[in-house]
Amino acid sequence: MLKQPQLKYRPFSPVTLPDRTWPDAVLTRAPIWLSTDLRDGNQALIEPMDIARKLRMFQQLVKIGFKEIEVGFPSASQTEFDFVRLLIDGGHIPDDVTIQVLTQARAHLIERTFEALDGARRVIVHVYNAVAPIMRRVVLGQDEDGIVELAATHARQIKQLADARPGTDWRFEYSPEMFSGTELAFSKRVVDAVTEVWAPTPERKCIINLPSTVEHSTPNIFADMIEWMHRHLARREAIVLSVHPHNDRGTGTAAGELALMAGADRIEGCLFGNGERTGNVDLVNIALNLYTQGVDPQLDFSDIDEVRRCVEHCTQIPVHPRHPYVGDLVYTSFSGSHQDAIKKAFAARRDGDIWDMPYLPIDPKDLGRSYDAVIRVNSQSGKGGIAYLLEAEYGLELPRRLQIEFSQVVQRVMDDAGKELTAADIYAIFEREYGIGHAGASVVQPQMTEVAGGAMRLSAEVVLGGWMGHVQGEGNGPIDAFVNALSARLGQEVRVLDYHEHAIGSGADARAVAYLEIRVGDVTRHGVGIDGSIVRASMQAVLSGLSRAPVAVPQTHQENVQ
Amino acid sequence: MLKQPQLKYRPFSPVTLPDRTWPDAVLTRAPIWLSTDLRDGNQALIEPMDIARKLRMFQQLVKIGFKEIEVGFPSASQTEFDFVRLLIDGGHIPDDVTIQVLTQARAHLIERTFEALDGARRVIVHVYNAVAPIMRRVVLGQDEDGIVELAATHARQIKQLADARPGTDWRFEYSPEMFSGTELAFSKRVVDAVTEVWAPTPERKCIINLPSTVEHSTPNIFADMIEWMHRHLARREAIVLSVHPHNDRGTGTAAGELALMAGADRIEGCLFGNGERTGNVDLVNIALNLYTQGVDPQLDFSDIDEVRRCVEHCTQIPVHPRHPYVGDLVYTSFSGSHQDAIKKAFAARRDGDIWDMPYLPIDPKDLGRSYDAVIRVNSQSGKGGIAYLLEAEYGLELPRRLQIEFSQVVQRVMDDAGKELTAADIYAIFEREYGIGHAGASVVQPQMTEVAGGAMRLSAEVVLGGWMGHVQGEGNGPIDAFVNALSARLGQEVRVLDYHEHAIGSGADARAVAYLEIRVGDVTRHGVGIDGSIVRASMQAVLSGLSRAPVAVPQTHQENVQ
Repeated sequence: MLKQPQLKYRPFSPVTLPDRTWPDAVLTRAPIWLSTDLRDGNQALIEPMDIARKLRMFQQLVKIGFKEIEVGFPSASQTEFDFVRLLIDGGHIPDDVTIQVLTQARAHLIERTFEALDGARRVIVHVYNAVAPIMRRVVLGQDEDGIVELAATHARQIKQLADARPGTDWRFEYSPEMFSGTELAFSKRVVDAVTEVWAPTPERKCIINLPSTVEHSTPNIFADMIEWMHRHLARREAIVLSVHPHNDRGTGTAAGELALMAGADRIEGCLFGNGERTGNVDLVNIALNLYTQGVDPQLDFSDIDEVRRCVEHCTQIPVHPRHPYVGDLVYTSFSGSHQDAIKKAFAARRDGDIWDMPYLPIDPKDLGRSYDAVIRVNSQSGKGGIAYLLEAEYGLELPRRLQIEFSQVVQRVMDDAGKELTAADIYAIFEREYGIGHAGASVVQPQMTEVAGGAMRLSAEVVLGGWMGHVQGEGNGPIDAFVNALSARLGQEVRVLDYHEHAIGSGADARAVAYLEIRVGDVTRHGVGIDGSIVRASMQAVLSGLSRAPVAVPQTHQENVQ
Repeated sequence: MLKQPQLKYRPFSPVTLPDRTWPDAVLTRAPIWLSTDLRDGNQALIEPMDIARKLRMFQQLVKIGFKEIEVGFPSASQTEFDFVRLLIDGGHIPDDVTIQVLTQARAHLIERTFEALDGARRVIVHVYNAVAPIMRRVVLGQDEDGIVELAATHARQIKQLADARPGTDWRFEYSPEMFSGTELAFSKRVVDAVTEVWAPTPERKCIINLPSTVEHSTPNIFADMIEWMHRHLARREAIVLSVHPHNDRGTGTAAGELALMAGADRIEGCLFGNGERTGNVDLVNIALNLYTQGVDPQLDFSDIDEVRRCVEHCTQIPVHPRHPYVGDLVYTSFSGSHQDAIKKAFAARRDGDIWDMPYLPIDPKDLGRSYDAVIRVNSQSGKGGIAYLLEAEYGLELPRRLQIEFSQVVQRVMDDAGKELTAADIYAIFEREYGIGHAGASVVQPQMTEVAGGAMRLSAEVVLGGWMGHVQGEGNGPIDAFVNALSARLGQEVRVLDYHEHAIGSGADARAVAYLEIRVGDVTRHGVGIDGSIVRASMQAVLSGLSRAPVAVPQTHQENVQ
């Protein structure tokens, strides 16, 4: 990189448009969409699609709801030509879908293009020529008049060829290629010359497509350029104003959105931003941005992963894990505080509520995705994610303080292992830490009888640490009685600070899980028990907590064992 | 997806700022950069970085030129804590680099944070708390006064802890978390409360960081929000105004750029847009966008692939092939017309010229990349790319009409194979098509003598098709003589329409390549010959062309074969 880049690179000139209106515009309806996946997208692939892939992509585009689909550049190669023929002859084009084909403004290419379209029901013929100064000077060797003449001549040729073929419903589209790098006044001059030839009417519009062939500037400048054209073009009322953004500066989506705010009616792009170099604008992104603002995009991504699979199959390029709305990681929350907030907001949400979820701008379910399916836990995560996973996968509703305690346990494991934990890993840590199903802290043959005054008397055989023995006590319920019995036996007061219990599963398979927060001396610990009986589960939970506390088990009483 | 998304999703409310100034602003200098690769980036990884990876990332960030680096959330886990200690105790922090650490606004986390920083030379302590309505209502259960009090209290704690440790040069940063989803007036109120506690001065500023924790709106609205804060914040002259964009709507880069235009001084993000969900803003993207406008970004990406390798190693997430400035495909041109334009513009370019290259917004060489290294040829390509490759890799400068002829040959192969061709593949097609080194069309023992009037007499043994024979003729040079000799022998006039020849290689190894356009009857063909002798090369080229034309070789003269 140069220390003085100003010697090599020239800043883009801003547009003088102090009375611009787009910054106050709000998008309230879907634009007209044009998918160029089969043309601009296909053209930029390491391995272009074969016919089978092209047909699959076309059918996917139709299924999503695209009504205008650019299917190729039929004069560019036999494969492209043959595919257009296949669509027409094979009857693959639904009645409400218009195919579009691209051609350079060259006579023999235009002729060949019309050959490819013989018998089509409805077609947009899209013609382009370069207008930018660099192209005029270096590539075409033409002055401004020459370029205007070139555009008008070929526009005329297209009109004549179309007029001679009344069996097809023809529409015309013109792109001043490299609009984004061209003087506005000259772009207008060329476009006006073309529309003068085509003589569109408000009832029979033509399409004028303004490409950021290369993204040269911040998106506000592109928006200014579009608003300028929107205001200055002749015959504007007879034009569908289209934009075709690329993404060289990583701001293609923004350029597309601001251009629509600036007066464009239509946008050309690809699914997930495929296309030359950094890609065409990502139409899925723009459509779903509209959706999250309450605007129906008129495109259906209810099963976005199916669309992704199709695109990955056809392009042989993977979608990035952080790609908006569709990447593997975009509904994943790794931060504990994020996870906690999402968990609470899900809990507070009622059906029919406006979507207002921290960290999730869209409900993943609307796209056939899920939040819980992709949540991962790592050493950066906190309690929220862990609790959410245990609840989602194992039905465990951990009380808040138990969440905090357990998250520290998980974090130690994480810090040691340094890698992702699955829900099963976390459950295994949970079982081990709280001795679930562990015979080393268990209660055998509990007997309960109610005594005078409604109190309960309990006796049981207990295993705790290396000790087994008989305990008995009274209390106002089984937990109270059990804790009193243990306190007497251990010679240390055991107190219950908090108690939660709930069912997991239902019917004959239902089990109870009890979470107890207990204190022994000045030590506080949680214990957890799971059992078919709510009593046994809570007794197990007491023993679980005790076994995690530094309790002196009565070694001298081992004679009671067995 | 819902048919009536307006029932579930609420549009973002625009900001009332009719006198906004940012749409006319132009970025003319680099912002202050803060890399949060080791914090926000690391937090969002499937497998967080281990210590070795963290250190490698830190050293890479220093090498690039970052002067402020967020190195972790030391109170969140032992790994994070230990890494901060390692940086300090290991002397890894250069004198001109300030580390930054994040902490929630909670007393015990702040205390633990200061423990981690003991002995550091210079530190930014970055504290945040949630301010958004959804967080106040659902997660924190606090009203506005409570949030302001929470922020001010912990700002005070930080100031006191810092004042008590004068050995370190402390700076403070505050983030109203979820700024992008918060009422502007309330964000201002909380920030003003914090700066009132910190009492920054223009000589000793604090940092106020405004995150689009979740990207909620088009980037122009984020810019309006930043301009509003820029104009309304108390003590603005004593504040470094920072932004922290995310990319949920795919417009993070645009949001970052427009926010800088709107008054922000500083930006936080990650290399190549790593980070939670769709990622943090991509600082490489923003830096190189500035660079292409002639602004020195003060970050060095002269070897961008080295940076990419480091990031891919540390994050274990690949950079997408279409990622701006760094993806595998972004300097690749697949379209024939694009390739042709690039070739011409490269040819027209002189050292010291302003960069003005169609389809390439940056010179790939500035980043240690190349255009030619990644160019691929496929069935959508035209002549430009093929010619460029043969020139770059084999030194062949194909004349324009030969390019056109040969591109059709390649295209047929491409259409049949349906996959990418390498330069070697193309050269092999070229050799086969033009019979380079093929004994089936060759000249043996040419004898040349100059005759009266300066003309040349030539005789040779010729192999052509299945025929071998002796030819002789005269002309004003060897080609003319050879063609005349062949014409006589074949009984058909052979004419030379065009002739190019040039050396490939130099010195003793140099060879000549001749390209001839010849006409036999009404058929025009190109021929190519390569030989150490310019004469033999051009004679080979004649035979090459003849062997590709429908010429009737004199079968009856096979008796001349020996």
